Amino acid sequence: MKRIYKNLESSVDAIVLMNAVDPHLDMSFFHATDLVTGGLFERSAAILWPDGRVEVFTSRLEEPSARKATEIDLVVYETNDERNEHLARRLSGLSNVGVNPNELTHADHQTLSATIKGPKLVDVGKAVAHARLVKDKKELDRMQRAADIASRVADEIPSMLKAGMMEYELAAEINYRMQRLGSSGPSFSTIVGFGENSAEPHYTSGERRLAEGDYVLCDFGAYYQHYASDITRTFVFGKASAKHREVYDIVLDAQRIGLEACRAGANGGDVHKAVAARIDATPYKGRFIHGTGHSLGLAVHDGPGLHPRWNLTLEEGMVMTVEPGIYLPDFGGVRIEDDVVITRDGCRLLTTAKKAFVEVHP
Amino acid sequence: MKRIYKNLESSVDAIVLMNAVDPHLDMSFFHATDLVTGGLFERSAAILWPDGRVEVFTSRLEEPSARKATEIDLVVYETNDERNEHLARRLSGLSNVGVNPNELTHADHQTLSATIKGPKLVDVGKAVAHARLVKDKKELDRMQRAADIASRVADEIPSMLKAGMMEYELAAEINYRMQRLGSSGPSFSTIVGFGENSAEPHYTSGERRLAEGDYVLCDFGAYYQHYASDITRTFVFGKASAKHREVYDIVLDAQRIGLEACRAGANGGDVHKAVAARIDATPYKGRFIHGTGHSLGLAVHDGPGLHPRWNLTLEEGMVMTVEPGIYLPDFGGVRIEDDVVITRDGCRLLTTAKKAFVEVHP
Repeated sequence: MKRIYKNLESSVDAIVLMNAVDPHLDMSFFHATDLVTGGLFERSAAILWPDGRVEVFTSRLEEPSARKATEIDLVVYETNDERNEHLARRLSGLSNVGVNPNELTHADHQTLSATIKGPKLVDVGKAVAHARLVKDKKELDRMQRAADIASRVADEIPSMLKAGMMEYELAAEINYRMQRLGSSGPSFSTIVGFGENSAEPHYTSGERRLAEGDYVLCDFGAYYQHYASDITRTFVFGKASAKHREVYDIVLDAQRIGLEACRAGANGGDVHKAVAARIDATPYKGRFIHGTGHSLGLAVHDGPGLHPRWNLTLEEGMVMTVEPGIYLPDFGGVRIEDDVVITRDGCRLLTTAKKAFVEVHP
Repeated sequence: MKRIYKNLESSVDAIVLMNAVDPHLDMSFFHATDLVTGGLFERSAAILWPDGRVEVFTSRLEEPSARKATEIDLVVYETNDERNEHLARRLSGLSNVGVNPNELTHADHQTLSATIKGPKLVDVGKAVAHARLVKDKKELDRMQRAADIASRVADEIPSMLKAGMMEYELAAEINYRMQRLGSSGPSFSTIVGFGENSAEPHYTSGERRLAEGDYVLCDFGAYYQHYASDITRTFVFGKASAKHREVYDIVLDAQRIGLEACRAGANGGDVHKAVAARIDATPYKGRFIHGTGHSLGLAVHDGPGLHPRWNLTLEEGMVMTVEPGIYLPDFGGVRIEDDVVITRDGCRLLTTAKKAFVEVHP
């Protein structure tokens, strides 16, 4: 809360965060209320006061989940109209009330606007996003747990591969193992691409069967108490060709360059340029078709990342993915991704799965 | 598309649907584009023209996924600014452009407003929601697949129960089996509540261990090609008490009343009143603390439902959950939930798992 108020461009008297219906929930609601161990909180709202106090407005359905948090004031309502009346009463007489337009539906903005009448609604999205970029110790502990779960499962992938298995079967196995290790669920739709499907960065998984000579690209992450991890590993099933190996080695070296460039004070755009330059100096020039990484936290794509378009100066405590890739349509692709926390002198890996080149022999 | 335009209160020249960053994606984007077999489509947009033509604007990352759909015009952009320029060019000269404020972030509404300048942005949320309420054959086929997966796993739950297992382990097993059967993932965070935790309607799952004399409440669903199912079954582990049995029988009978009341032309509020009256005529009066059901489709809570606050007249082709429950803090709760498609004379069950009272003997 203090981080949000400190980052404000112009002062507000209060901040309101408001959830619509799943999946349209404001991740900052969970950040600010610390209601991270269960409960859906559809249609719930929170008022963040400048003195650090948080009031939560929730329906009876969520009351038992909300009661588990001790440091919040809880108001239980029966209908949305009743919720709106509570909010209007609390906020009456104020001049400026902050909202987070990046995770507030336009419909709820309209409702809020019509309900509270007096105060002006002010966009505090930047301050909210910035507060989320830099993690405190409690957040980093949760992210380490999320990363540990993903790392352990990543290391187990070679043992899961069987000729003829389908991509979605491997995805199911990965998700199962993460949840058995304490994850509340995958942090996004697990990507498993065999062979030519590995060349599609936002593929999910399908019925392609695993065959010798395929790349196996797995990109997945765990949610742990609302915090996400995100890891990618690429293997070769059966005997690798020289090209399989060459592409892998270039991506791995490009990732090393990226990891070495991450430190407090560095520009995320420069990190990307260094990584892209390594790939563009090879025959695979132009086949790295996305940014080097993104901020990670309550969401998987949680704010700006490592690409010149963001022009982000890295700070201690930010968590970024570093994930170069080379994508060759009809042949396949390699991506290697880790999560790092930025430190004064460099960065520290949260994900620790092995990444030496692996041929899995069936 | 035709359904949306037919439902409009005032005419528009085009409709724009716009995704922000996961999870803030407009489910109607997938509905309108039929891009349901893979791809994330963050920051993608679609223009729906009155003649039924759909133009999709997507980044290079999603291009391979988008190319799989044959009936859309595809425009691939490099940056968000480029996307905005495309939209501005397409929409220039128009008077009214419809948007879906229920799944559009306020930030994107502001961007759209600033970008396209000329045309007025008009709220077509109601028409979009109504078009989603009534399903066509292709949608019902997908929902039947999603329901079949959930039903099969629900019937397998008794065989998964072991004394001492933790709730999240059972949740992991349920999710795994759904994905192995072809689901792209759970349609919401799987709820497994043992014993007293079953009394918390929006519980998820935790480390409570299964013991004899516990209720086992499992509420979960499968996503299949972007369409959701949603089922709840409740069992007793070990010997049931008379109260376990009594509560179960009342809920089951209340559900029967709800299922019998569902038909085209019926009011959803009346369905709820009939169900609630059954429960309120027992010693458990007041312990049914939510609506009888909700519309199901591209989202799990997809629009209005079976409760007087919605005042919804049921129509042929709508899909609703029917899910009464009784919740007794410190003792436990029972909920029994099925998905039905409304027909002219009644309703047809999509979910078909058994629901006779089951004591699971360890």
